[in-house]
Amino acid sequence: MKNMNAAVKNSKPLPKTTSTMQDTRICFIGDSFVNGTGDEMMLGWAGRLCAEARQQGHDITYYNLGIRRHTSTDILQRWPELALRQHPDSDNRIVLSCGVNDTMMENGALRVDFETTIDNMRELFKRMESSPGLVVGPPPVGDAPQNQRIQTLSNAMQIEAETAGLPFIPLFDHLIQDSAYLAEIAKNDGAHPKSTGYNKIARIILDSEKWWF
Amino acid sequence: MKNMNAAVKNSKPLPKTTSTMQDTRICFIGDSFVNGTGDEMMLGWAGRLCAEARQQGHDITYYNLGIRRHTSTDILQRWPELALRQHPDSDNRIVLSCGVNDTMMENGALRVDFETTIDNMRELFKRMESSPGLVVGPPPVGDAPQNQRIQTLSNAMQIEAETAGLPFIPLFDHLIQDSAYLAEIAKNDGAHPKSTGYNKIARIILDSEKWWF
Repeated sequence: MKNMNAAVKNSKPLPKTTSTMQDTRICFIGDSFVNGTGDEMMLGWAGRLCAEARQQGHDITYYNLGIRRHTSTDILQRWPELALRQHPDSDNRIVLSCGVNDTMMENGALRVDFETTIDNMRELFKRMESSPGLVVGPPPVGDAPQNQRIQTLSNAMQIEAETAGLPFIPLFDHLIQDSAYLAEIAKNDGAHPKSTGYNKIARIILDSEKWWF
Repeated sequence: MKNMNAAVKNSKPLPKTTSTMQDTRICFIGDSFVNGTGDEMMLGWAGRLCAEARQQGHDITYYNLGIRRHTSTDILQRWPELALRQHPDSDNRIVLSCGVNDTMMENGALRVDFETTIDNMRELFKRMESSPGLVVGPPPVGDAPQNQRIQTLSNAMQIEAETAGLPFIPLFDHLIQDSAYLAEIAKNDGAHPKSTGYNKIARIILDSEKWWF
Protein backbone atom coordinates (compact mmCIF):
# COMPACT_ATOMS: atom_id res chain seq x y z
CA MET A 1 0.00 0.00 0.00
CA LYS A 2 3.05 2.24 0.25
CA ASN A 3 2.83 3.43 -3.36
CA MET A 4 -0.82 4.19 -3.05
CA ASN A 5 -0.50 6.14 0.15
CA ALA A 6 2.27 8.22 -1.35
CA ALA A 7 0.22 8.85 -4.46
CA VAL A 8 -2.86 9.67 -2.48
CA LYS A 9 -1.25 12.03 0.01
CA ASN A 10 -2.14 15.23 -1.78
CA SER A 11 -5.70 14.12 -2.26
CA LYS A 12 -8.94 15.94 -1.59
CA PRO A 13 -9.35 17.36 1.93
CA LEU A 14 -10.64 14.94 4.53
CA PRO A 15 -14.41 14.84 4.68
CA LYS A 16 -16.24 16.06 7.73
CA THR A 17 -16.32 13.34 10.34
CA THR A 18 -19.73 12.36 11.61
CA SER A 19 -20.52 10.87 14.98
CA THR A 20 -22.46 7.92 13.55
CA MET A 21 -20.60 6.02 10.89
CA GLN A 22 -22.78 4.83 8.06
CA ASP A 23 -22.52 1.20 6.98
CA THR A 24 -21.68 1.58 3.28
CA ARG A 25 -21.53 -1.49 1.02
CA ILE A 26 -20.06 -0.97 -2.42
CA CYS A 27 -20.39 -3.56 -5.17
CA PHE A 28 -17.97 -3.14 -8.05
CA ILE A 29 -19.34 -5.10 -11.00
CA GLY A 30 -17.54 -5.59 -14.29
CA ASP A 31 -14.66 -7.29 -16.05
CA SER A 32 -11.03 -8.26 -15.39
CA PHE A 33 -10.04 -4.62 -14.87
CA VAL A 34 -12.56 -4.45 -12.02
CA ASN A 35 -11.26 -7.78 -10.71
CA GLY A 36 -7.74 -6.33 -10.66
CA THR A 37 -6.27 -9.05 -12.87
CA GLY A 38 -2.49 -8.57 -13.07
CA ASP A 39 -2.18 -6.64 -9.80
CA GLU A 40 0.38 -8.40 -7.63
CA MET A 41 -1.20 -6.72 -4.57
CA MET A 42 -4.62 -8.28 -5.31
CA LEU A 43 -6.42 -4.98 -4.74
CA GLY A 44 -7.02 -3.61 -8.23
CA TRP A 45 -8.35 -0.07 -8.47
CA ALA A 46 -11.54 -1.01 -6.62
CA GLY A 47 -9.70 -2.31 -3.55
CA ARG A 48 -7.49 0.80 -3.51
CA LEU A 49 -10.51 3.11 -3.61
CA CYS A 50 -12.13 1.26 -0.70
CA ALA A 51 -8.92 1.18 1.35
CA GLU A 52 -8.57 4.93 0.81
CA ALA A 53 -12.20 5.60 1.83
CA ARG A 54 -11.67 3.44 4.89
CA GLN A 55 -8.54 5.39 5.74
CA GLN A 56 -10.67 8.55 5.65
CA GLY A 57 -12.87 6.99 8.31
CA HIS A 58 -15.74 5.55 6.25
CA ASP A 59 -17.20 2.18 7.23
CA ILE A 60 -16.88 0.36 3.89
CA THR A 61 -17.75 -3.20 2.92
CA TYR A 62 -16.05 -4.04 -0.36
CA TYR A 63 -17.59 -6.52 -2.78
CA ASN A 64 -15.61 -7.15 -5.97
CA LEU A 65 -17.73 -8.64 -8.75
CA GLY A 66 -15.28 -8.27 -11.62
CA ILE A 67 -15.05 -11.37 -13.83
CA ARG A 68 -12.45 -11.93 -16.53
CA ARG A 69 -13.71 -11.91 -20.15
CA HIS A 70 -17.13 -10.62 -19.13
CA THR A 71 -18.96 -8.42 -21.64
CA SER A 72 -21.91 -6.13 -20.97
CA THR A 73 -24.16 -9.06 -21.97
CA ASP A 74 -22.57 -11.35 -19.36
CA ILE A 75 -22.85 -8.68 -16.65
CA LEU A 76 -26.51 -8.06 -17.43
CA GLN A 77 -27.22 -11.77 -17.00
CA ARG A 78 -25.62 -11.95 -13.56
CA TRP A 79 -27.03 -8.68 -12.23
CA PRO A 80 -28.86 -10.60 -9.41
CA GLU A 81 -25.45 -11.16 -7.75
CA LEU A 82 -25.73 -7.56 -6.53
CA ALA A 83 -28.94 -7.93 -4.53
CA LEU A 84 -27.40 -10.77 -2.50
CA ARG A 85 -24.76 -8.33 -1.27
CA GLN A 86 -27.04 -5.43 -0.40
CA HIS A 87 -28.54 -4.98 3.02
CA PRO A 88 -31.82 -3.10 3.59
CA ASP A 89 -30.37 -1.03 6.45
CA SER A 90 -27.15 -0.13 4.63
CA ASP A 91 -26.07 2.53 2.19
CA ASN A 92 -25.76 0.23 -0.85
CA ARG A 93 -23.80 1.57 -3.83
CA ILE A 94 -22.89 0.18 -7.24
CA VAL A 95 -19.87 0.92 -9.43
CA LEU A 96 -20.06 -0.51 -12.95
CA SER A 97 -17.13 -0.72 -15.33
CA CYS A 98 -16.95 -2.76 -18.53
CA GLY A 99 -16.69 -2.48 -22.30
CA VAL A 100 -13.21 -3.67 -23.30
CA ASN A 101 -14.38 -7.27 -23.83
CA ASP A 102 -17.34 -6.13 -25.94
CA THR A 103 -14.86 -4.53 -28.39
CA MET A 104 -12.69 -7.65 -28.75
CA MET A 105 -12.50 -9.44 -32.10
CA GLU A 106 -12.96 -13.19 -31.81
CA ASN A 107 -13.23 -15.57 -34.78
CA GLY A 108 -13.47 -12.64 -37.15
CA ALA A 109 -16.30 -10.84 -35.35
CA LEU A 110 -16.79 -8.49 -32.44
CA ARG A 111 -17.69 -10.33 -29.24
CA VAL A 112 -20.64 -7.92 -28.85
CA ASP A 113 -21.67 -5.60 -31.66
CA PHE A 114 -21.81 -1.91 -30.88
CA GLU A 115 -25.61 -1.60 -30.97
CA THR A 116 -26.10 -4.50 -28.59
CA THR A 117 -23.49 -3.06 -26.23
CA ILE A 118 -25.36 0.25 -26.16
CA ASP A 119 -28.67 -1.52 -25.57
CA ASN A 120 -27.03 -3.45 -22.71
CA MET A 121 -25.61 -0.26 -21.23
CA ARG A 122 -29.03 1.40 -21.28
CA GLU A 123 -30.52 -1.58 -19.48
CA LEU A 124 -27.64 -1.71 -16.96
CA PHE A 125 -27.92 2.01 -16.24
CA LYS A 126 -31.66 1.64 -15.77
CA ARG A 127 -31.11 -1.09 -13.20
CA MET A 128 -28.67 1.17 -11.35
CA GLU A 129 -31.31 3.82 -10.76
CA SER A 130 -32.41 2.41 -7.40
CA SER A 131 -28.96 2.75 -5.71
CA PRO A 132 -26.35 5.49 -5.76
CA GLY A 133 -24.34 4.44 -8.81
CA LEU A 134 -21.22 5.36 -10.73
CA VAL A 135 -19.92 4.27 -14.13
CA VAL A 136 -16.19 4.02 -14.84
CA GLY A 137 -15.21 3.95 -18.52
CA PRO A 138 -13.10 1.23 -20.19
CA PRO A 139 -9.29 1.68 -20.30
CA PRO A 140 -7.13 1.40 -23.43
CA VAL A 141 -5.33 -1.85 -24.30
CA GLY A 142 -2.27 -2.59 -26.45
CA ASP A 143 -4.06 -2.85 -29.81
CA ALA A 144 -4.64 0.30 -31.90
CA PRO A 145 -7.79 -0.74 -33.82
CA GLN A 146 -9.39 -2.01 -30.61
CA ASN A 147 -8.46 1.23 -28.87
CA GLN A 148 -10.41 3.16 -31.51
CA ARG A 149 -13.45 1.04 -30.71
CA ILE A 150 -12.88 1.46 -26.95
CA GLN A 151 -12.68 5.24 -27.32
CA THR A 152 -15.88 5.35 -29.37
CA LEU A 153 -17.61 3.14 -26.82
CA SER A 154 -16.34 5.19 -23.87
CA ASN A 155 -17.74 8.38 -25.43
CA ALA A 156 -21.09 6.72 -26.12
CA MET A 157 -21.20 5.27 -22.59
CA GLN A 158 -20.62 8.72 -21.14
CA ILE A 159 -23.58 10.13 -23.06
CA GLU A 160 -25.84 7.21 -22.07
CA ALA A 161 -24.76 7.30 -18.42
CA GLU A 162 -25.26 11.02 -18.08
CA THR A 163 -28.63 10.80 -19.86
CA ALA A 164 -29.60 8.22 -17.21
CA GLY A 165 -28.45 10.60 -14.48
CA LEU A 166 -25.38 8.54 -13.59
CA PRO A 167 -21.94 10.06 -13.04
CA PHE A 168 -19.35 8.75 -15.50
CA ILE A 169 -15.58 8.83 -14.99
CA PRO A 170 -13.59 8.21 -18.20
CA LEU A 171 -10.26 6.39 -18.04
CA PHE A 172 -9.40 6.19 -21.74
CA ASP A 173 -8.32 9.77 -22.44
CA HIS A 174 -6.03 9.87 -19.42
CA LEU A 175 -4.40 6.49 -19.93
CA ILE A 176 -3.93 6.62 -23.72
CA GLN A 177 -1.60 9.58 -23.14
CA ASP A 178 0.32 7.81 -20.39
CA SER A 179 3.28 6.09 -22.05
CA ALA A 180 4.38 4.45 -18.78
CA TYR A 181 0.92 2.87 -18.39
CA LEU A 182 0.97 1.61 -21.97
CA ALA A 183 4.50 0.26 -21.49
CA GLU A 184 3.40 -1.56 -18.35
CA ILE A 185 0.51 -3.33 -20.07
CA ALA A 186 2.70 -4.17 -23.08
CA LYS A 187 5.27 -5.75 -20.78
CA ASN A 188 2.55 -7.61 -18.87
CA ASP A 189 -0.09 -9.32 -21.08
CA GLY A 190 -0.98 -6.57 -23.54
CA ALA A 191 -4.14 -5.52 -21.73
CA HIS A 192 -3.82 -5.47 -17.93
CA PRO A 193 -1.54 -3.28 -15.84
CA LYS A 194 0.21 -4.33 -12.65
CA SER A 195 0.12 -2.44 -9.35
CA THR A 196 1.52 0.82 -10.76
CA GLY A 197 -1.19 0.99 -13.40
CA TYR A 198 -3.98 0.07 -11.01
CA ASN A 199 -2.72 2.78 -8.71
CA LYS A 200 -2.98 5.27 -11.57
CA ILE A 201 -6.56 4.23 -12.31
CA ALA A 202 -7.47 4.62 -8.63
CA ARG A 203 -5.80 8.05 -8.72
CA ILE A 204 -7.88 9.17 -11.72
CA ILE A 205 -11.08 8.19 -9.90
CA LEU A 206 -10.00 9.68 -6.57
CA ASP A 207 -9.18 12.96 -8.32
CA SER A 208 -12.61 13.13 -9.93
CA GLU A 209 -15.27 15.25 -8.29
CA LYS A 210 -17.68 12.44 -9.17
CA TRP A 211 -16.13 9.92 -6.76
CA TRP A 212 -17.98 9.76 -3.49
CA PHE A 213 -15.21 9.84 -0.87
CA MET B 1 1.49 -5.25 2.98
CA LYS B 2 4.49 -4.59 5.23
CA ASN B 3 3.09 -6.55 8.17
CA MET B 4 2.27 -9.47 6.00
CA ASN B 5 5.63 -9.63 4.33
CA ALA B 6 7.32 -9.53 7.69
CA ALA B 7 5.05 -12.25 9.03
CA VAL B 8 5.49 -14.35 5.96
CA LYS B 9 9.25 -14.10 5.67
CA ASN B 10 10.07 -17.35 7.39
CA SER B 11 7.50 -19.21 5.37
CA LYS B 12 7.79 -22.51 3.52
CA PRO B 13 10.65 -22.73 1.00
CA LEU B 14 9.92 -21.31 -2.43
CA PRO B 15 8.31 -23.83 -4.74
CA LYS B 16 10.13 -25.06 -7.80
CA THR B 17 9.69 -22.58 -10.61
CA THR B 18 8.33 -23.95 -13.84
CA SER B 19 8.89 -22.52 -17.30
CA THR B 20 5.18 -22.36 -18.15
CA MET B 21 3.11 -20.57 -15.54
CA GLN B 22 -0.27 -22.11 -14.93
CA ASP B 23 -3.33 -19.88 -14.98
CA THR B 24 -4.82 -20.58 -11.55
CA ARG B 25 -8.20 -19.10 -10.60
CA ILE B 26 -9.19 -19.38 -6.97
CA CYS B 27 -12.72 -18.69 -5.76
CA PHE B 28 -13.05 -18.09 -2.03
CA ILE B 29 -16.69 -18.59 -1.11
CA GLY B 30 -18.16 -17.95 2.32
CA ASP B 31 -19.12 -15.31 4.84
CA SER B 32 -17.89 -11.95 6.15
CA PHE B 33 -14.61 -13.47 7.34
CA VAL B 34 -13.94 -14.56 3.75
CA ASN B 35 -14.97 -11.10 2.55
CA GLY B 36 -12.43 -9.56 4.92
CA THR B 37 -14.97 -7.37 6.71
CA GLY B 38 -13.15 -5.11 9.17
CA ASP B 39 -9.79 -5.22 7.37
CA GLU B 40 -8.71 -1.66 6.69
CA MET B 41 -6.43 -3.00 3.89
CA MET B 42 -9.40 -4.58 2.06
CA LEU B 43 -7.53 -7.84 1.52
CA GLY B 44 -8.82 -10.16 4.25
CA TRP B 45 -7.04 -13.48 4.66
CA ALA B 46 -8.02 -14.57 1.15
CA GLY B 47 -6.37 -11.58 -0.52
CA ARG B 48 -3.25 -12.04 1.59
CA LEU B 49 -2.96 -15.71 0.59
CA CYS B 50 -3.28 -14.81 -3.10
CA ALA B 51 -0.79 -11.93 -2.86
CA GLU B 52 1.69 -14.29 -1.20
CA ALA B 53 1.19 -16.98 -3.88
CA ARG B 54 1.65 -14.33 -6.54
CA GLN B 55 4.83 -13.18 -4.85
CA GLN B 56 6.11 -16.76 -5.11
CA GLY B 57 5.60 -16.54 -8.87
CA HIS B 58 2.19 -18.17 -9.31
CA ASP B 59 -0.25 -16.71 -11.84
CA ILE B 60 -3.29 -16.25 -9.61
CA THR B 61 -6.70 -14.80 -10.37
CA TYR B 62 -8.45 -13.98 -7.11
CA TYR B 63 -12.22 -14.11 -6.82
CA ASN B 64 -13.66 -13.22 -3.42
CA LEU B 65 -17.20 -14.51 -2.91
CA GLY B 66 -17.55 -13.85 0.80
CA ILE B 67 -20.89 -12.29 1.77
CA ARG B 68 -21.73 -10.85 5.17
CA ARG B 69 -24.31 -12.77 7.24
CA HIS B 70 -24.29 -15.75 4.88
CA THR B 71 -24.95 -19.16 6.37
CA SER B 72 -24.22 -22.54 4.80
CA THR B 73 -27.80 -22.47 3.45
CA ASP B 74 -27.23 -19.12 1.71
CA ILE B 75 -23.95 -20.31 0.23
CA LEU B 76 -25.49 -23.50 -1.12
CA GLN B 77 -28.15 -21.43 -2.88
CA ARG B 78 -25.64 -19.23 -4.67
CA TRP B 79 -23.18 -21.97 -5.59
CA PRO B 80 -23.67 -21.21 -9.33
CA GLU B 81 -21.67 -17.99 -8.82
CA LEU B 82 -18.57 -20.19 -8.91
CA ALA B 83 -19.03 -21.65 -12.38
CA LEU B 84 -19.22 -18.14 -13.89
CA ARG B 85 -15.68 -17.53 -12.61
CA GLN B 86 -14.11 -20.78 -13.77
CA HIS B 87 -12.47 -21.16 -17.14
CA PRO B 88 -12.23 -24.52 -18.94
CA ASP B 89 -8.51 -24.06 -19.71
CA SER B 90 -7.56 -22.90 -16.21
CA ASP B 91 -6.65 -24.57 -12.96
CA ASN B 92 -9.87 -23.73 -11.09
CA ARG B 93 -9.81 -24.06 -7.31
CA ILE B 94 -12.34 -23.49 -4.55
CA VAL B 95 -11.80 -22.48 -0.93
CA LEU B 96 -14.91 -22.67 1.28
CA SER B 97 -15.18 -21.15 4.73
CA CYS B 98 -18.35 -20.58 6.72
CA GLY B 99 -20.21 -21.64 9.85
CA VAL B 100 -20.13 -18.72 12.27
CA ASN B 101 -23.46 -17.33 11.00
CA ASP B 102 -25.12 -20.74 11.25
CA THR B 103 -24.34 -20.75 15.00
CA MET B 104 -25.82 -17.30 15.65
CA MET B 105 -28.89 -16.92 17.84
CA GLU B 106 -31.56 -14.70 16.29
CA ASN B 107 -35.05 -14.16 17.75
CA GLY B 108 -34.44 -16.93 20.27
CA ALA B 109 -33.37 -19.58 17.77
CA LEU B 110 -30.26 -20.64 15.90
CA ARG B 111 -30.09 -19.16 12.41
CA VAL B 112 -29.45 -22.70 11.11
CA ASP B 113 -29.88 -25.75 13.33
CA PHE B 114 -26.89 -28.05 13.67
CA GLU B 115 -28.34 -30.94 11.66
CA THR B 116 -29.23 -28.70 8.72
CA THR B 117 -25.76 -27.16 8.80
CA ILE B 118 -24.18 -30.61 8.61
CA ASP B 119 -26.50 -31.60 5.74
CA ASN B 120 -25.52 -28.38 3.95
CA MET B 121 -21.83 -29.05 4.52
CA ARG B 122 -22.15 -32.56 3.06
CA GLU B 123 -23.85 -31.14 -0.02
CA LEU B 124 -21.28 -28.33 -0.35
CA PHE B 125 -18.37 -30.75 -0.01
CA LYS B 126 -19.93 -33.02 -2.62
CA ARG B 127 -20.15 -30.11 -5.04
CA MET B 128 -16.47 -29.35 -4.42
CA GLU B 129 -15.38 -32.77 -5.67
CA SER B 130 -14.91 -31.65 -9.28
CA SER B 131 -12.25 -29.00 -8.49
CA PRO B 132 -9.26 -28.98 -6.17
CA GLY B 133 -10.87 -27.75 -2.97
CA LEU B 134 -10.01 -26.70 0.54
CA VAL B 135 -12.17 -26.04 3.61
CA VAL B 136 -11.17 -23.47 6.23
CA GLY B 137 -12.90 -23.76 9.60
CA PRO B 138 -14.87 -20.99 11.33
CA PRO B 139 -13.00 -18.63 13.72
CA PRO B 140 -14.07 -17.82 17.29
CA VAL B 141 -16.08 -14.68 18.08
CA GLY B 142 -16.54 -12.65 21.27
CA ASP B 143 -19.40 -14.69 22.76
CA ALA B 144 -18.62 -17.75 24.91
CA PRO B 145 -21.80 -19.81 24.31
CA GLN B 146 -21.53 -19.20 20.56
CA ASN B 147 -17.87 -20.18 20.67
CA GLN B 148 -18.86 -23.55 22.11
CA ARG B 149 -21.18 -24.07 19.16
CA ILE B 150 -18.48 -22.89 16.71
CA GLN B 151 -15.95 -25.33 18.17
CA THR B 152 -18.42 -28.23 17.95
CA LEU B 153 -19.25 -27.27 14.38
CA SER B 154 -15.59 -26.89 13.41
CA ASN B 155 -14.83 -30.39 14.70
CA ALA B 156 -17.81 -31.84 12.85
CA MET B 157 -16.86 -29.97 9.65
CA GLN B 158 -13.36 -31.43 9.84
CA ILE B 159 -14.74 -34.97 10.02
CA GLU B 160 -17.17 -34.35 7.15
CA ALA B 161 -14.58 -32.62 4.97
CA GLU B 162 -11.97 -35.33 5.47
CA THR B 163 -14.58 -38.04 4.85
CA ALA B 164 -15.29 -36.28 1.54
CA GLY B 165 -11.55 -36.27 0.76
CA LEU B 166 -11.18 -32.52 1.25
CA PRO B 167 -8.35 -30.96 3.24
CA PHE B 168 -9.56 -28.96 6.26
CA ILE B 169 -7.62 -26.22 8.05
CA PRO B 170 -9.05 -25.33 11.48
CA LEU B 171 -8.81 -21.76 12.77
CA PHE B 172 -10.71 -22.07 16.02
CA ASP B 173 -8.14 -23.87 18.19
CA HIS B 174 -5.37 -21.46 17.20
CA LEU B 175 -7.35 -18.25 17.60
CA ILE B 176 -9.21 -19.08 20.82
CA GLN B 177 -5.82 -19.21 22.54
CA ASP B 178 -4.67 -15.94 21.02
CA SER B 179 -5.56 -13.21 23.51
CA ALA B 180 -4.37 -10.45 21.17
CA TYR B 181 -6.73 -11.72 18.44
CA LEU B 182 -9.64 -11.87 20.88
CA ALA B 183 -8.81 -8.38 22.14
CA GLU B 184 -8.76 -7.06 18.58
CA ILE B 185 -12.22 -8.41 17.76
CA ALA B 186 -13.59 -7.19 21.11
CA LYS B 187 -12.29 -3.70 20.35
CA ASN B 188 -13.66 -3.84 16.80
CA ASP B 189 -17.24 -5.20 16.49
CA GLY B 190 -17.11 -8.32 18.66
CA ALA B 191 -16.68 -10.70 15.74
CA HIS B 192 -14.33 -9.44 13.01
CA PRO B 193 -10.63 -8.68 13.33
CA LYS B 194 -8.79 -5.87 11.58
CA SER B 195 -5.62 -6.24 9.52
CA THR B 196 -3.54 -7.79 12.32
CA GLY B 197 -6.08 -10.56 12.87
CA TYR B 198 -6.55 -11.24 9.16
CA ASN B 199 -2.80 -11.46 8.88
CA LYS B 200 -2.79 -14.10 11.62
CA ILE B 201 -5.48 -16.13 9.87
CA ALA B 202 -3.50 -15.98 6.62
CA ARG B 203 -0.42 -17.09 8.59
CA ILE B 204 -2.24 -20.13 10.04
CA ILE B 205 -3.25 -21.22 6.54
CA LEU B 206 0.16 -20.49 5.00
CA ASP B 207 1.82 -22.55 7.73
CA SER B 208 -0.44 -25.53 7.06
CA GLU B 209 0.85 -28.31 4.84
CA LYS B 210 -2.65 -28.41 3.37
CA TRP B 211 -2.38 -24.99 1.72
CA TRP B 212 -1.39 -25.26 -1.94
CA PHE B 213 1.33 -22.63 -2.35
